[in-house]
Amino acid sequence: MVFRASAGITSSWEHFDFSVADGVATVTFCRPEKLNALTFDVYADLRDLVAELPHRGDARVLVITGEGRGFCSGGDVEEIIGELRGMEPAQLLEFTRMTGAVVKALRECPLPVIAAVNGIAAGAGSVIALASDFRLLAASASFAFLFTKVGLAGADMGSAYLLPRLVGFGRATELLMLGDKVDAATALSIGLATKVVDDLPAETTALATRLASGPALAYSTTKVLLTRELDMALGSAIELEAITQALLMKSEDHAEFYAAWTTGREPQWKGR
Amino acid sequence: MVFRASAGITSSWEHFDFSVADGVATVTFCRPEKLNALTFDVYADLRDLVAELPHRGDARVLVITGEGRGFCSGGDVEEIIGELRGMEPAQLLEFTRMTGAVVKALRECPLPVIAAVNGIAAGAGSVIALASDFRLLAASASFAFLFTKVGLAGADMGSAYLLPRLVGFGRATELLMLGDKVDAATALSIGLATKVVDDLPAETTALATRLASGPALAYSTTKVLLTRELDMALGSAIELEAITQALLMKSEDHAEFYAAWTTGREPQWKGR
Amino acid sequence: MVFRASAGITSSWEHFDFSVADGVATVTFCRPEKLNALTFDVYADLRDLVAELPHRGDARVLVITGEGRGFCSGGDVEEIIGELRGMEPAQLLEFTRMTGAVVKALRECPLPVIAAVNGIAAGAGSVIALASDFRLLAASASFAFLFTKVGLAGADMGSAYLLPRLVGFGRATELLMLGDKVDAATALSIGLATKVVDDLPAETTALATRLASGPALAYSTTKVLLTRELDMALGSAIELEAITQALLMKSEDHAEFYAAWTTGREPQWKGR
Repeated sequence: MVFRASAGITSSWEHFDFSVADGVATVTFCRPEKLNALTFDVYADLRDLVAELPHRGDARVLVITGEGRGFCSGGDVEEIIGELRGMEPAQLLEFTRMTGAVVKALRECPLPVIAAVNGIAAGAGSVIALASDFRLLAASASFAFLFTKVGLAGADMGSAYLLPRLVGFGRATELLMLGDKVDAATALSIGLATKVVDDLPAETTALATRLASGPALAYSTTKVLLTRELDMALGSAIELEAITQALLMKSEDHAEFYAAWTTGREPQWKGR
Repeated sequence: MVFRASAGITSSWEHFDFSVADGVATVTFCRPEKLNALTFDVYADLRDLVAELPHRGDARVLVITGEGRGFCSGGDVEEIIGELRGMEPAQLLEFTRMTGAVVKALRECPLPVIAAVNGIAAGAGSVIALASDFRLLAASASFAFLFTKVGLAGADMGSAYLLPRLVGFGRATELLMLGDKVDAATALSIGLATKVVDDLPAETTALATRLASGPALAYSTTKVLLTRELDMALGSAIELEAITQALLMKSEDHAEFYAAWTTGREPQWKGR
Repeated sequence: MVFRASAGITSSWEHFDFSVADGVATVTFCRPEKLNALTFDVYADLRDLVAELPHRGDARVLVITGEGRGFCSGGDVEEIIGELRGMEPAQLLEFTRMTGAVVKALRECPLPVIAAVNGIAAGAGSVIALASDFRLLAASASFAFLFTKVGLAGADMGSAYLLPRLVGFGRATELLMLGDKVDAATALSIGLATKVVDDLPAETTALATRLASGPALAYSTTKVLLTRELDMALGSAIELEAITQALLMKSEDHAEFYAAWTTGREPQWKGR
């Protein structure tokens, strides 16, 4: 069910490749010669796409990946940092709010998001991966929260909120303050990577397919509550879960589980 | 000192085995043929026992374990899920609030709680272990937050609040969204298990005895502050600790420590 | 730029060694025969120094270390615990508030703090290291949050707030409740140590020099936001980062990065 009235659905996203198939939406950063460095337009489109995605009605999971050797090298030094040099505070704040809005959208999007990190994820690229739900890494992938290396705060787009909650406050302090590169094995050992894989496209497809063809409402509420409960007290979190679970107990998929179980067959998930 | 007036102490818990010896209270789930699947009555008794336990005056630590091959396989598919199918929202909510109340009681109980995980801890069973203070695992033990596999939210009984705070937000997302099994070695490496042991009954007794015969007020306040400070800001947490510690400096056990230290003997803890 | 009017800068710290060179301030606990056990005066001086440090104008990073075999063995049993035995609640609270104020000052200090842990860090010593931003450990270093072993709460000086946010709630429960020793290798594996090193003085100097000679405003804001965002909700954290980053985009160091990048030279950081 999609609630949308006058507002249209964007027919063409011009600043990255976008496709939807079998419930899997895929964003592919497509400036491989620049390691998929971001431009103002990529940020804007990403913010708007993620907000619109749940309204399309055809997607149950979002995959974000990059073409070529890199995942995303962050803001383009020429096209973004160079331009920012000439801007006034009000304009700078519009820019930094836009970049933060991408992360907020990713975390508030009710669909699971998989970052298929095919190479270096640096700066804003590392935070986009960080704000995803799953991070599948090629062995050659790496992270670099390199903001201080360009003279900026390591706290960017929510990184100083998110990273400590994934890897712990001590490790996050080191990674954000120093901005050094984190290889795939280290990312896995500290809880920054979900998995390091040999065949990234195949593993990404497998996970995306599993999420898209499974109990999507269950996945969606799990993500939404995980996000919200980071900011909630224990008692409120337990109440939110009680109410949510009571709702889900009336869902078609939960009924289907029970029906399948009683007859010894596999459930046919409808995602609602 | 036990403050209790008209309300009685329950003399018999009928839906699990219960015993108290030498300050150690033990709950043993006792439907081994069902891997200790929970029934409505087990939930209710667990909620009520944990609330009553500090008022008994004879227990300083609670051990929760299971009989047979499993620790607790969660809500019984027949006796719980089957019954829920016929319930209205108000009844469902009463049920989910009861299950959440078990976790709230475990976290708010001023006694340390040890989950001696002797086998599979699945669904609600995994959350009961998660809500305990210590998780001692047999090598054959495992966790499975399998809620999405029955079409429900992975956020159940506070799991989406607790698990990210133990293993990090990325790993918790994976475990709660997908619901796959976590073996004992993995649980240890990510901080979900306190320890994996060869002789679970012996190690459980050793830890429980240590907690019951030690400075119980110190243990109790440590637990209570750990729980509360998850939801507090830094400044408030430091103030709470300052006030608590000033109180403890007037305790018999702290005086006993100093007396023992000055005379070179071992302290004789009184637990107050 | 230092804003300070009538209040003077302390010329001599009498209860630890203190020096500043090349932007690196160093506190060295100097009672090696007592494993650098703390006295009332050391706590007071540490609280006051950390508050004053950013106002001196000559320090960009603080190193805390110990002379001899130990880093800091915590409150002296004779000179602190013995004295506390005779105190009334109001006095005890003044003491515990002072110890908590040390941790609050360390976390709120806008300079990065490195604990160079040269040996045992026990009790209050372990919390001082915990409240630092970086923990470099000699192989012989260890932690012991041994408060319960003296009959006090494991929650002391903010330990029950900080430790779960570094190593996870389960591990923190074990370490604070039981108070057992944590060796350097374990501290590293759970995220309590930043790094375990062979040559502690050399590695400490290298890190301190890097922080002092680098983009200090970027480092400082990263630390401050990391600290504050532990207590903030996602949306507010993202907004705080957006505003902060817009400010930093007007900083000399960010301009210098871009100037250096366009001409292919290394940036000359000014720290502002």
